[in-house]
Amino acid sequence: MLSEFTLIDRFFTQRARRRTRRAALGIGDDCALIAPAPGEVLAVSTDMLVEGRHFLPDVDPRALGHKALAVNLSDLAAMGAAPLGFMLAFSLPAPREDWLEAFSEGLLELADRYDCELIGGDTTAGPLNLCITVFGSVPPDLALRRDAAKPGDDVWVSGTPGDARAGLGLLRGEWSVDDADADALRRALEQPEPRVALGLALRGVARSALDVSDGLAGDLMHILERSGVGARIDADAPPKSPALAKLPLDVQRRCALAGGDDYELCFTAAPGQRPAVEAAAQQAAARVTRIGTITSLDPADPERAVPSISWHDASGAPLNLTLQGFDHFHAD
Amino acid sequence: MLSEFTLIDRFFTQRARRRTRRAALGIGDDCALIAPAPGEVLAVSTDMLVEGRHFLPDVDPRALGHKALAVNLSDLAAMGAAPLGFMLAFSLPAPREDWLEAFSEGLLELADRYDCELIGGDTTAGPLNLCITVFGSVPPDLALRRDAAKPGDDVWVSGTPGDARAGLGLLRGEWSVDDADADALRRALEQPEPRVALGLALRGVARSALDVSDGLAGDLMHILERSGVGARIDADAPPKSPALAKLPLDVQRRCALAGGDDYELCFTAAPGQRPAVEAAAQQAAARVTRIGTITSLDPADPERAVPSISWHDASGAPLNLTLQGFDHFHAD
Repeated sequence: MLSEFTLIDRFFTQRARRRTRRAALGIGDDCALIAPAPGEVLAVSTDMLVEGRHFLPDVDPRALGHKALAVNLSDLAAMGAAPLGFMLAFSLPAPREDWLEAFSEGLLELADRYDCELIGGDTTAGPLNLCITVFGSVPPDLALRRDAAKPGDDVWVSGTPGDARAGLGLLRGEWSVDDADADALRRALEQPEPRVALGLALRGVARSALDVSDGLAGDLMHILERSGVGARIDADAPPKSPALAKLPLDVQRRCALAGGDDYELCFTAAPGQRPAVEAAAQQAAARVTRIGTITSLDPADPERAVPSISWHDASGAPLNLTLQGFDHFHAD
Repeated sequence: MLSEFTLIDRFFTQRARRRTRRAALGIGDDCALIAPAPGEVLAVSTDMLVEGRHFLPDVDPRALGHKALAVNLSDLAAMGAAPLGFMLAFSLPAPREDWLEAFSEGLLELADRYDCELIGGDTTAGPLNLCITVFGSVPPDLALRRDAAKPGDDVWVSGTPGDARAGLGLLRGEWSVDDADADALRRALEQPEPRVALGLALRGVARSALDVSDGLAGDLMHILERSGVGARIDADAPPKSPALAKLPLDVQRRCALAGGDDYELCFTAAPGQRPAVEAAAQQAAARVTRIGTITSLDPADPERAVPSISWHDASGAPLNLTLQGFDHFHAD
């Protein structure tokens, strides 16, 4: 069995040291030293992934390495922060060299692509658990917060939400599609691409933002609750990927609105910003779609007294959607 | 079963929000925003604690909350960094309210005492695993690094190392002591006090430092290897607590030199700094003891060609100590 230090050294330190060093001091001391860009602050997020809860035991370790960092980079994207570095803490039952090699490759390939440096971490024996803490830099007044949506704002979503949940359904045997579509949906589930470029391009354009990790409906509620507003949303507005569009309409809608693990951005912006939003999306090579409008609360109207989503279809007819409990696998 | 959000809110967010807010944005957004003091950088460290590996299943949850943060604050102390805040990620099999209440109390009591703010985190279902990432602030040129020891430096250690390992031996039935001594040793194991004040007082005084989490001998080797030096150490110089001093001499020595989990500081300083080191210790209300000297490597001498510790007893007679493998419980 490889010792902790051999293991860290072979698969992480040596590979990380070949890369550019942004941290003043990286792996190997009691702490790493890191600083935001001048005039900016650090954006920090941490995500813990547990086997059986966030990924299946037989997941491709390369894809897992990618995803463990991707879900953290997605939090930076949702804040409009530029990636700087990350800490990797993990426990695993026994160090398997082939598994670690593939895992570290998937992880560091994505880290390289976003210029996000591995600056430290911790490894220990135990049930498989991955905990990454990621650091980005953002000017404090340009950070895309959850509590800044205003009545009248457009509500936007990036990409084609629902693909990751459709991919999970494939693995669970809830539905089936042909091989090419299966590849696309599984890729959406296992190797999500964080919307870092879009988050950066939306600085000063979007008013509020978050990433859709627990499903569009549930995550949008966080913006509504923290901003003290409501929303009117067209349930069929989020665009469907060609693969998702082949599934039954009810499945499409539930995947797109309540499926977790998409890591798309949901954001609000003033209507006057539509050209700027489109330009930001083009610059980031991302698709963005308007799906509704932020509304004000009305204490006198029982249906609008507290933050909630009012759903309608493309014709404007009200819909009564029950989406809760669709996504147990990623519920917490 | 409490949902993730209810759980976070009741035991952590509400309590954290009552406290001073240093972070520009704390719990509840995609990222927390945090900045070092002007002209300083952030010191960051992460530690993962796993049941059965770092603590026993029946550990007092209040003590566990204390220790989970203490081991991280100890890394800041070893860097000479002032605590700012921390992220808490954890998985647990099922949220037990009494357990969470005691755990959060132990955690936040220590956080308050060191003015270290809970700024975010993640919770999920899974085998019990605690991952804390802590943030401090330090002027980059005053950070106490591991790679800066110089031949001729004194080697110092704080406190009475070995008590935590002696406490573990009690729990394991390896030896026994009377009740008062048992309380003292168990307290050293379960509720270590991070040497934050000493680390801050040693800025500009010590040349290199680290915290003794894996045993004095093994941890000192990290300084030697990273600094490219050797050390000559008096194996009996580290002072023993009254409780440890009652155990057999061989046990005392092995606990003090190879026992993990002490979270004392081991540091080096130029001999001219002895009065300054003593003054720093007094200011921090900590005991410090000189235990040896940093030596230069000599490629021509097989025994001094690579970083190693040359042990001797109080009379100066050489000792051949085999300390490896003494501390399996905390080996990684």
